[in-house]
Amino acid sequence: MAKHCDEPVTQIHLKPKMTVNELVTAMGMAGAYNGGSLSRAVEIYGQMLRDPETTKFFGLAGAMVPAGMGGIVSDLVKNGHIDVLVSTGANLTHDIIEAIGCRHFHGTAFCNDAELRHDEINRIYDVYLPNEAFEHFEEFMQNVFRRLEPGSTISISGLLCHLGKNLTSGILHAAAEKKVPVYCPAVQDSMVGLQYWLFSQTNQVTVDAFADMPSLMDTCFTTKKAGAFLVGGGVPKNFILQSMLMTPNGFDFAVQLTGDRPDLGGLSGATLDEARSWGKITETAQAVTVYGDATITLPILIAAVMERIYYD
Amino acid sequence: MAKHCDEPVTQIHLKPKMTVNELVTAMGMAGAYNGGSLSRAVEIYGQMLRDPETTKFFGLAGAMVPAGMGGIVSDLVKNGHIDVLVSTGANLTHDIIEAIGCRHFHGTAFCNDAELRHDEINRIYDVYLPNEAFEHFEEFMQNVFRRLEPGSTISISGLLCHLGKNLTSGILHAAAEKKVPVYCPAVQDSMVGLQYWLFSQTNQVTVDAFADMPSLMDTCFTTKKAGAFLVGGGVPKNFILQSMLMTPNGFDFAVQLTGDRPDLGGLSGATLDEARSWGKITETAQAVTVYGDATITLPILIAAVMERIYYD
Amino acid sequence: MAKHCDEPVTQIHLKPKMTVNELVTAMGMAGAYNGGSLSRAVEIYGQMLRDPETTKFFGLAGAMVPAGMGGIVSDLVKNGHIDVLVSTGANLTHDIIEAIGCRHFHGTAFCNDAELRHDEINRIYDVYLPNEAFEHFEEFMQNVFRRLEPGSTISISGLLCHLGKNLTSGILHAAAEKKVPVYCPAVQDSMVGLQYWLFSQTNQVTVDAFADMPSLMDTCFTTKKAGAFLVGGGVPKNFILQSMLMTPNGFDFAVQLTGDRPDLGGLSGATLDEARSWGKITETAQAVTVYGDATITLPILIAAVMERIYYD
Amino acid sequence: MAKHCDEPVTQIHLKPKMTVNELVTAMGMAGAYNGGSLSRAVEIYGQMLRDPETTKFFGLAGAMVPAGMGGIVSDLVKNGHIDVLVSTGANLTHDIIEAIGCRHFHGTAFCNDAELRHDEINRIYDVYLPNEAFEHFEEFMQNVFRRLEPGSTISISGLLCHLGKNLTSGILHAAAEKKVPVYCPAVQDSMVGLQYWLFSQTNQVTVDAFADMPSLMDTCFTTKKAGAFLVGGGVPKNFILQSMLMTPNGFDFAVQLTGDRPDLGGLSGATLDEARSWGKITETAQAVTVYGDATITLPILIAAVMERIYYD
Repeated sequence: MAKHCDEPVTQIHLKPKMTVNELVTAMGMAGAYNGGSLSRAVEIYGQMLRDPETTKFFGLAGAMVPAGMGGIVSDLVKNGHIDVLVSTGANLTHDIIEAIGCRHFHGTAFCNDAELRHDEINRIYDVYLPNEAFEHFEEFMQNVFRRLEPGSTISISGLLCHLGKNLTSGILHAAAEKKVPVYCPAVQDSMVGLQYWLFSQTNQVTVDAFADMPSLMDTCFTTKKAGAFLVGGGVPKNFILQSMLMTPNGFDFAVQLTGDRPDLGGLSGATLDEARSWGKITETAQAVTVYGDATITLPILIAAVMERIYYD
Repeated sequence: MAKHCDEPVTQIHLKPKMTVNELVTAMGMAGAYNGGSLSRAVEIYGQMLRDPETTKFFGLAGAMVPAGMGGIVSDLVKNGHIDVLVSTGANLTHDIIEAIGCRHFHGTAFCNDAELRHDEINRIYDVYLPNEAFEHFEEFMQNVFRRLEPGSTISISGLLCHLGKNLTSGILHAAAEKKVPVYCPAVQDSMVGLQYWLFSQTNQVTVDAFADMPSLMDTCFTTKKAGAFLVGGGVPKNFILQSMLMTPNGFDFAVQLTGDRPDLGGLSGATLDEARSWGKITETAQAVTVYGDATITLPILIAAVMERIYYD
Repeated sequence: MAKHCDEPVTQIHLKPKMTVNELVTAMGMAGAYNGGSLSRAVEIYGQMLRDPETTKFFGLAGAMVPAGMGGIVSDLVKNGHIDVLVSTGANLTHDIIEAIGCRHFHGTAFCNDAELRHDEINRIYDVYLPNEAFEHFEEFMQNVFRRLEPGSTISISGLLCHLGKNLTSGILHAAAEKKVPVYCPAVQDSMVGLQYWLFSQTNQVTVDAFADMPSLMDTCFTTKKAGAFLVGGGVPKNFILQSMLMTPNGFDFAVQLTGDRPDLGGLSGATLDEARSWGKITETAQAVTVYGDATITLPILIAAVMERIYYD
Repeated sequence: MAKHCDEPVTQIHLKPKMTVNELVTAMGMAGAYNGGSLSRAVEIYGQMLRDPETTKFFGLAGAMVPAGMGGIVSDLVKNGHIDVLVSTGANLTHDIIEAIGCRHFHGTAFCNDAELRHDEINRIYDVYLPNEAFEHFEEFMQNVFRRLEPGSTISISGLLCHLGKNLTSGILHAAAEKKVPVYCPAVQDSMVGLQYWLFSQTNQVTVDAFADMPSLMDTCFTTKKAGAFLVGGGVPKNFILQSMLMTPNGFDFAVQLTGDRPDLGGLSGATLDEARSWGKITETAQAVTVYGDATITLPILIAAVMERIYYD
C-alpha cells in the first residue's frame, strides 16, 4: 500500500433516528471535503471548550440573528462557552430587535423590492423585517441612551453592556449577565450607531473608539492559551485574529465557518494557514475552515459539540 | 403588522442529543438562507418519496463516491427510493473500485502533487487513491468486458448493468439487483470509458450512444408524476431535466444540492425557477435549491427524510 | 530584504486608451489574486499557441454560446488555434441555433419564469431564447439527419462534422471547414441529442459512443507536446485531461477559466496541481487557473493573446 | 417574435489592438452574465461621474492595496472622482506601507506558512509582505501620532487626514491633498489601530468613534443626488449604504464589485435590489452588481470609464 494512505474513507450508511453527533461522526469517517472539515471542527471546538486554560473568543459576522442563529450564540454565552465576543453592529441591532419583542419573518428572496418598500418591509435575503420594528427599536434605544451619564466618556463595550443590562433576553443580555465583554469595533456602522448619532445630536457622551483596547490586550497578554471560533469574516474575524499579534503568542485553536473563498485575497475568505504566516495562530495550532452557509454548519457543529461535552 | 409577515423566525435553541430530523425541524422554524432551504428540501423530498405515482429520478455528479457518499446512494437504491439513476462516469468508476475491495484514503489538499505522483497516489481534493487500485480495476474491467457477446450492440445502461451483476456491493450492484436503470450519457469520459476503449482495441462490441433513449422516453411519457433529486449539476442534472422536455409534462418535485452559483449562466448553477421557463419542471412544481457542499447537505437531508418516512 | 521577495507588486495606474494587452500587462505587474493569474494565463496560452509542436485542445463548457462567446471560439478555430475541440452538447445546440439565423436575446434573471413559460421564452440566466428557435432547429436537424446513410454506423464527431458541413457559420461550420474534430461525449445530453432520438425513432443509424476514441488516442500518443485550454469544467475538462492518462505523457500547458471552487471536491473546480498527481499534466507543466466568469475572463485573455501574437 | 425579445446577443469577435473600452462595448453587445453586468457598470459609473449634482461615495474593502489596486484609487481621488471614501483599516495600513517606501511582493498561495513565519514573511493569498515593513511602519506611525495635540479629541477621519498630510503618495496623501474625507469606522481593527493603541499607552488623545457622523450626515442631507461605487462588501459597503437611511433620499447610482454570493444572507453579498427594500437606494436607482475578483473587474471598469469620459 502506498504511503500516506492508512486511514480509509468509510462510506456513510445512515441509521434511523441518528443524533446529530452520530451523523457528524459518520461524516468524519467518510472524512472528505467540507463534511470532513466539519467533523474536524467539532473535534477542535470540543477540545477548545473543554480546555480550562484557554480563553474562548467568538466572532459573529453575517446576518446571523435575523436567520435564527442568535439563540445558539446566547446559549453559548449563558453556558460559559464564550469569554470574549466580537460582533458586527448589525447582529447586535437585530438581537435587540428580537429582545424587545419584535420579530423577523420568513419571506422570499425572489420578490419585488420596490413593492416591499411600499409595504414597509426591509429584506435580508429571504427574511423580512417590518419597518415598525425600527420604530420600537428607536424608542428603546433613545430611552436607554438617555440613562448614560451626561458628559461622560464610555467604551463601545461599555455602551453595549449598558444596553444588555436593559434587556431581558438575547445575546447582549446574556453577555451583560455573564460579564462577557462584547466588542464591536465598527459600532457606528449599524442601526445601533445611527441611533447613537441621533442621541448625540442633543446629548454629550463621548464613545472612545480605543477604550476597549487595554482590557482586550490584557486578556491576550495574560491568557495561557487562546481559541477562536469565527462565524463569517469581516471585522470580527480580523479583530480577533489581530488581537494576539502584539503578544508573543498566537491562537492555539481556530475554527472558521465561512462562505467566502481564498483566491479573492480578502481576509474574510483567507485560510487559517495564511494566519500562521502572520503569527496570528501558532505554528502548531489546531485549525480548520468549513466552507458553507453557517445557517447549516453552525447548528450542526454546536449540537454535535454539546452532545460530546455533556454526554461523553 | 405589515402584510407578508405572518411566519416569524424562531431562534434556534439546541437540545441535548437531538436527532438529525429534530435539528432540521429547528432549522425550518428559523427558516432562513440555506438552512431554511435544507429544511424545505427535506419536506419536498419526503413528499416525493412517499408519493406512489411519482417516478423518482436521482442525479449524481461531483466526486461523491470518493467522499463516502456512495453508501447513501446504494442504500437509497436498495430501499426502493430511486427508479432512474443518472451518474457521471467518475462516480461509477469509484463505486467499482470500492466494490472490488480497494479503498480511498483520507489525505490533504495542501500537499506537493509532484511528490504524490512519485508516490503513485492520485488526489481528489483531500482524498487519496493509490495507483494500484487502478491495476485491480483494470483486471476486473477487462475480465468482465470479455464476457460480453462478441459482435453485439449494447446500450450504456446495459453495459453498466453487466458490470453491476459482476459486483457484490455498491451502487451498480444495488441497481442491477433492483433493476434500476443507470444512465451515464458520457461514459467515455471516465476510467470506465478508458477501460472500454482498451477492450475495444481487440474486441468488437458496439456501445450505441442512443440505445437508452427509448426506454427513458417511455418512462417519461407514461409516468403520472415525476420527481428529480439532483446532487451536483453537470450531465446528470441536464439529462434528467431535459428528459421531460419532449413530453407534455414536467417534473412535479425537484431538489438540487449544488455548490455552484446562478450568475455564471451555466446549467449546473442554474436555479430551478429557470427550469420552469423551459417547462422542464411544471409551473406549480415544488422545488428548492440548497447551496453548499453535498458532503454536508446530502447526509443531513437523507437522514432527516428517512427519520420522517420510517418514524412519522 | 527577506528571501522569496524580489518581484514587487506595482500599483496599477491606468492610462488613456489602453489596449487590452496593455491592461493585462499592468495586471501582471500588480500580479495578485485572479488578476495576476489572468496575466499568467495570457503568457502561458501565448506560448502554447506559438509552439508548433504542441497539439492544442480546447474545452468548452458552460452556456457560452448564448452569452456571445461563440464568436471567439469560431474565430480561434478559423485562425488555426484549436486542433481538438471538446464541447458540451448545449453549446453546439446554441451554435446551430445562431448559425441557422435564430437569435438569443438580452433578458433579465429577475423575472417570473411561469410568465416566461406562457410567453414561450426559455431563460438562460439573463438570456432569453424564444421557443420558435427550437422549431427552426428541429426542421434543420431532421433535414440534415435524413441525409445520413441508412443503416450506417457513425461516430459522434462524424455526426457533428455532418452538421457543420450543412451550416455556413459558427463553431461547427468552422471546425468542419478546418477539419478540426469536435468531440462531444455526452451528445445525448442536449437538444442535438433529443433531435437525434426523434430521428432515430423512424430511421436506423447507429451512433457508436466509442468510435471517436481511436483517433483521439492516436493524437495523444503521437503528439510531441500537448496543451489544454479549458473554459469551464464538466465533461470537456475531464475528457481532455484524461485523454493523456493512457499515454506516457501529460499536458505541457494548461489554462482553465472556472467559476467553481476546489474545496467541493468536484473535478470542475479542481486545481491543475491536482491533475499533476494523476499525471494528466506533467510535473513541470505550465498551468494556471483563473477563477471568475468566463464572459469576462475569456474575451480579455484572448484579446491580449491575439495582440501579443500578431503584434509582438 | 416573442415579446421581451428585441435586443439580440451579438457574438463577440475580437479585433486587433482593441482598447479596453472597445472590449467592454463588445461585452455589452453580447450582454450576458457578469460580462453584461460589467458593461452596464461602466455605463452607470460613467453617468455617475459625469453628473455634477451627485456626491460620489467610494467603498474600499478586500485586500486591494496589497494587490496593486491602490494606484487606481489614489488616481480617482486625484482626478476628483471621489468625494467620500470609506475604507477598511487594512487597505489604509497597506497604503501607508507603500507610501513610506516599503513594498509588497509577488509570492504564491501554495506554500508552507510555518516556513514563511520563520522567514518573517506575512502572506496575503499570493502576496508576500516582509516583517521589516511593519518595523518602518511602526516608526512612521509613532512619529506622526506624537505630533497630535496632547489631551485633544479627534475624529477618525481627522486622524487619517493627519496621517495623509505626513505622506507624499498613496490614497491617504491624495485624500488629504484633495480634502476628501476618509472614513474608517473600524479603524481599531487594523495595524493602524494597533499602532494607535501602542501610542495611547503613554499618550492621551481621544479618538471619538462618532465624531465623523455629523459631517457625513450633513453631506447626505444636503446633496441633491448620491452615487455609490463599492469594491467589496464589509463595513465600507454597509456604512455607505446606511448613510442615506436617515435622509428622505437614497442613492441614485450604485455599482458593486463583489466575489460574495447573495444566498448566504450576509450584507457583503446582498443584491442592490435588496437595498431598495430598505430605501438605501432609490426605487428607480440605476444599480448593478458585477460578481468576480476586483483585481480583474476594477481595472477594466475604470479604464473603460476613463476612456469614455476623456475621449467621448
